Amino acid sequence: MGIAEQMARRAKDAAQVLRTVTPACRAEALNKMADKLIACKDEVLRANADDIANAGELTPAFKKRLTVDEKVFNYMVKRLQEAAALPDPVGRIIEARTMPSGLQVKRVAVPIGVIAMIYEARPNVTTDAAAVALKSGNAVVLKGGSESLRTNMVLAQAMREAAVEAGLPADAVQLIPSTDRADVAELLKQDEFIDLIIPRGGKSLIKAIAEGTRIPVLKHYDGICHQFVAADADVDMAVNVVVNSKCQNVAVCNALETLLIDSAASDVLVKSIARALQEHGVELRGCPAFCSIVPGCIPATDDDWDSEYLSSILSVKMVDGIRGAMKHIAEHGSGHTDGIITSSDALAAEFVTNVDSASVLVNASTRLSGGGDYGMGAVVGISTDRLHARGPVGPAELCTYKWVAVGTGQLRD
Amino acid sequence: MGIAEQMARRAKDAAQVLRTVTPACRAEALNKMADKLIACKDEVLRANADDIANAGELTPAFKKRLTVDEKVFNYMVKRLQEAAALPDPVGRIIEARTMPSGLQVKRVAVPIGVIAMIYEARPNVTTDAAAVALKSGNAVVLKGGSESLRTNMVLAQAMREAAVEAGLPADAVQLIPSTDRADVAELLKQDEFIDLIIPRGGKSLIKAIAEGTRIPVLKHYDGICHQFVAADADVDMAVNVVVNSKCQNVAVCNALETLLIDSAASDVLVKSIARALQEHGVELRGCPAFCSIVPGCIPATDDDWDSEYLSSILSVKMVDGIRGAMKHIAEHGSGHTDGIITSSDALAAEFVTNVDSASVLVNASTRLSGGGDYGMGAVVGISTDRLHARGPVGPAELCTYKWVAVGTGQLRD
Repeated sequence: MGIAEQMARRAKDAAQVLRTVTPACRAEALNKMADKLIACKDEVLRANADDIANAGELTPAFKKRLTVDEKVFNYMVKRLQEAAALPDPVGRIIEARTMPSGLQVKRVAVPIGVIAMIYEARPNVTTDAAAVALKSGNAVVLKGGSESLRTNMVLAQAMREAAVEAGLPADAVQLIPSTDRADVAELLKQDEFIDLIIPRGGKSLIKAIAEGTRIPVLKHYDGICHQFVAADADVDMAVNVVVNSKCQNVAVCNALETLLIDSAASDVLVKSIARALQEHGVELRGCPAFCSIVPGCIPATDDDWDSEYLSSILSVKMVDGIRGAMKHIAEHGSGHTDGIITSSDALAAEFVTNVDSASVLVNASTRLSGGGDYGMGAVVGISTDRLHARGPVGPAELCTYKWVAVGTGQLRD
Repeated sequence: MGIAEQMARRAKDAAQVLRTVTPACRAEALNKMADKLIACKDEVLRANADDIANAGELTPAFKKRLTVDEKVFNYMVKRLQEAAALPDPVGRIIEARTMPSGLQVKRVAVPIGVIAMIYEARPNVTTDAAAVALKSGNAVVLKGGSESLRTNMVLAQAMREAAVEAGLPADAVQLIPSTDRADVAELLKQDEFIDLIIPRGGKSLIKAIAEGTRIPVLKHYDGICHQFVAADADVDMAVNVVVNSKCQNVAVCNALETLLIDSAASDVLVKSIARALQEHGVELRGCPAFCSIVPGCIPATDDDWDSEYLSSILSVKMVDGIRGAMKHIAEHGSGHTDGIITSSDALAAEFVTNVDSASVLVNASTRLSGGGDYGMGAVVGISTDRLHARGPVGPAELCTYKWVAVGTGQLRD
């Protein structure tokens, strides 16, 4: 039995205990984890320096993801404390009724059980994932990127010690302490013990995991996000929302990738948006109609409509009203986040009903689709799956439910 | 392109329309389906007689499942009408809040999209599945058992005509009109168009489907259901609940299969239960301690604790209090339905918290775990999966949700 199977088995035992633990005890464990992290800050930073020194040649972007500096460290501590303070999702009564027979029926939120997180370089996922999983009463098995193994081991050890101090099983949090890909392959086979896998990383990592396991995988694929600017949109609002959607952070999944503009929009509206984007250094790739209005626009190719750029590039298409916009989104969208900018409630309602995406926005930046701006607190990712959890995945989404029926001897006729 | 792929593509187009249809229109379609069924009753019964005549040598049990008699026919009509009258699950606001920024955030129930049902002999699944799927705004692709193809084709055609009369796309309901296994294999590959597969049938069918597709499968496996009789249980209630759990219908997934009795229980309690079961013709297979109290009991083997008999056999074990019961259930249960019979609220609460099953009952028959007795109306099955839907699967469980955020130009800082 390899290390991954051993850990999966121990996690299942820990989950059985966690199911019975009080909310106060889980919150205390999260606070103690934050304290423990603060107490071993030097050790964390030292391990991280070792990781970076041993990682060989690094791109600046990769080095940034791998680095735990003062800011990242404080953020990790804060996320644990925030998770402790969030409302407890376990035991929430989702619905309840008393049947004519007198049987009292309740649907109650309970932990999923054992969650495996498989992720890449960022060491803060180690604490973020543990915080959200534990908040919902789950045991977690972590497999981070090889390059951050030393950092992750210090973080995991601190969290395990804190768990024990709070009266939880140490195996509530486990980290696979290896850089061996065979351990991941073994982990994917533990469908008897692991209830859910959440991969964090590039599309190829997620796809490989989803295809290599019978365990349910909560997938987080592309964000090919759209804004549709209706002809009646307020010019200032449209400019501000589009620029913020695209430029606030180009490298994230809820950044705008394709802008759709009603072909009935005024030249002022089209040109104002285009100018503002260009002033922010955005490369515009447009359909012929857009290019004919906007100087300096590059003609878009077919590939552009299916591209998640994650950079300062935006594809722009003039469409035949809301129907044209909805058709384009149905064909090219990834079901992540799509918005409309309009002053018409009727148009907004039509868009919201027809567009089948995890988040549908009206007059708001796509960058607001996420746990924090939806009031969910800590999240472990944004699901592009349709089942179980859609959009931001926080503590409530890491619960399932059970039915509890309490009677006084009720029988079936 | 084979028939299954053609149908899957058409179902996806139909789902896009269904998403925008009003609850009244969907209810009308279900009522019209019931009317249409009544109008073509003779045709249904004739097709069913043909199916039976052509099915060759049949076991009595199989023939019973295949047969649409007056009672089954009326039941099918009634289920469609009941589905029409149920509260509409689509558009339900699951949660809503206004963020400090003024952004109004809602989590709204929406249809899953396209659901494929793969099932065995019973023709009533054709109408039941269509009723529940359509109630939640989904398009459904049906693949029934080969033996009932003629019956199913008449039923499906009637439902398609009714859909069109109510203004829905005909392809809201499609039946694969073949007995070719290759069509099922092709259906399982349509992950681009089908969002969920629900198999109904034996464990081997479900397992083969789950292992043969990348589409999510809502599984309905064994019901190895337990009752634990605590030492403080009321004798009459214990006798009645245990007998009903076992005997009301032995052939169903929520029938009792293993009885656990606290070894501290009085001989009167143990013997009263045993006698009542024996009087109902139940073969008792007991542990040594139980056999020493109850004459005529057959010694249980290890296999008995993992058996779903679906017949008049019951395994019985004396256990070391509630801890012994919970340990046995954790090791041998299937997570379907498990109950406790006790007069202690504290024991009941401990059992409910610790036992990780889709349904956990207190002082009630296991036969009550199901859609009807939980007030859910029509269901398409009972899920033993942990994610998305657990326990009875009704219209609400065939919905997913989307996030809708309405603003007035909100940006991310």
